[in-house]
Amino acid sequence: MEEATPAVQERIRSSFGRQGLMAHLGARLGHIGPGRVHIQLPARPEVTQQHGYFHAGATSSIADSAGGYAAFTLFPEGSSVLTVEFKINLLAPAEGEQIEAIGKVLKSGRTLTVCQLEVFAVQATQRTLVAVGQQTIICIHNRADH
Amino acid sequence: MEEATPAVQERIRSSFGRQGLMAHLGARLGHIGPGRVHIQLPARPEVTQQHGYFHAGATSSIADSAGGYAAFTLFPEGSSVLTVEFKINLLAPAEGEQIEAIGKVLKSGRTLTVCQLEVFAVQATQRTLVAVGQQTIICIHNRADH
Amino acid sequence: MEEATPAVQERIRSSFGRQGLMAHLGARLGHIGPGRVHIQLPARPEVTQQHGYFHAGATSSIADSAGGYAAFTLFPEGSSVLTVEFKINLLAPAEGEQIEAIGKVLKSGRTLTVCQLEVFAVQATQRTLVAVGQQTIICIHNRADH
Amino acid sequence: MEEATPAVQERIRSSFGRQGLMAHLGARLGHIGPGRVHIQLPARPEVTQQHGYFHAGATSSIADSAGGYAAFTLFPEGSSVLTVEFKINLLAPAEGEQIEAIGKVLKSGRTLTVCQLEVFAVQATQRTLVAVGQQTIICIHNRADH
Repeated sequence: MEEATPAVQERIRSSFGRQGLMAHLGARLGHIGPGRVHIQLPARPEVTQQHGYFHAGATSSIADSAGGYAAFTLFPEGSSVLTVEFKINLLAPAEGEQIEAIGKVLKSGRTLTVCQLEVFAVQATQRTLVAVGQQTIICIHNRADH
Repeated sequence: MEEATPAVQERIRSSFGRQGLMAHLGARLGHIGPGRVHIQLPARPEVTQQHGYFHAGATSSIADSAGGYAAFTLFPEGSSVLTVEFKINLLAPAEGEQIEAIGKVLKSGRTLTVCQLEVFAVQATQRTLVAVGQQTIICIHNRADH
Repeated sequence: MEEATPAVQERIRSSFGRQGLMAHLGARLGHIGPGRVHIQLPARPEVTQQHGYFHAGATSSIADSAGGYAAFTLFPEGSSVLTVEFKINLLAPAEGEQIEAIGKVLKSGRTLTVCQLEVFAVQATQRTLVAVGQQTIICIHNRADH
Repeated sequence: MEEATPAVQERIRSSFGRQGLMAHLGARLGHIGPGRVHIQLPARPEVTQQHGYFHAGATSSIADSAGGYAAFTLFPEGSSVLTVEFKINLLAPAEGEQIEAIGKVLKSGRTLTVCQLEVFAVQATQRTLVAVGQQTIICIHNRADH
């Protein structure tokens, strides 16, 4: 998979590092490509729902960040990224060693970007699609950019 | 607001207590009424996004749990609750002392329940609607119930 | 219910009149208030699904237009309205003499507006909520407006 | 692309033929494969919004039917199909000679099926993705099937 430029990767890592929630959940940035970002979340009791599976909120949190950062890789320097909305379908109980969210840009516009979200549960060599989503992201251009 | 029966309240509290994610985020159960549940999440660095606001994932996590438990208050004894899907619009940056999610049942069926989700940011006496959502929940009936 | 100003009502009626789909379905504009628009669709074989109920597409079509026009009532003169996305839950089979969609603005911004969508089936004096939705609308400002 | 069995194709065509809305819009069934159905809608003034593009309601109507029938191809004999909910993002103005909706099953379960929806605008040999969606479908089993 294609890698984003070092400058873009640095911008994503720096922003991710400021997301208190990602560190608190134990989430890690994976691949950063142009219009595509992966985030992994290892299994631990702190991210479960009542039956011991990954909580839909944990699944949604890394999916939302993966999509937002996928969009952010394509934004101009100095802009900010905000989630307008997302929708997620939980296809199967999320269990395994970790889950991985993949955010991909489907349509990139000056103001709005639409992303596809996928979350896989990973157990040894097996990957199971456990959630799919769609997300709308807005680019907040800085003043000088206008 | 009407309170759920003690048995239903106990069922919700017991399940909530088993959600590792809610404790890890610092979320607390508030009101438990028939078809309506509130969950509060105090501000702390562990639940933020890159600008210091509540992360959309934290907002979504308590909204998802509030809706799921609102549905669960109306389910028969011995059944389980799973989120099928939800959609959430983030209306404004979520900042304040805490956020509060309110899940309300809009339509209750034997298999599927549809909930409305609202999240307010609370700062002193001011409440601001920061997110709205819609959620589909499925009731997993236990064997003896069939 | 409060009525929109005559100028705004005229703007909505004029745009609605140019929507070929609304006339073709047989839909009619009802109430036009600030941030709120109603659209009715009488039952007829041309708007059914395979069991004779209103087709989800017909329900969605008038819900989408009701929300879009609700947003449009609050837009500045000379701007245009486009649907970014919507989500709709179909709560019950839509049957009756007509269905009525109510679009209401939940949050109005310079660029994006979020609307709540409700559709009721009407049979004599009985109104049944058959669908609920959430919609994101974008305001396309004309050049002179910048 | 793989074709569905003649019996399944006949089941889909028969149901589609009973959808008054599809005929009224001028929509036509295209490919019918296992878990995948295409529906085309030629451009005509009767399916437009106020700027002359395909109305989001028309786009949504054929997307909803395409997804519902994609699910229906995998359902047991004698069952019925109902849309629980769908969400659609409109990526670009839908203009061209026709639009084509493609419904694909992402996850098939005994009760619930989740579909991906895509709509393309077709102009001569050019295909543009104009809408993407996600849909939840419920299978209503007949009595004897229990």
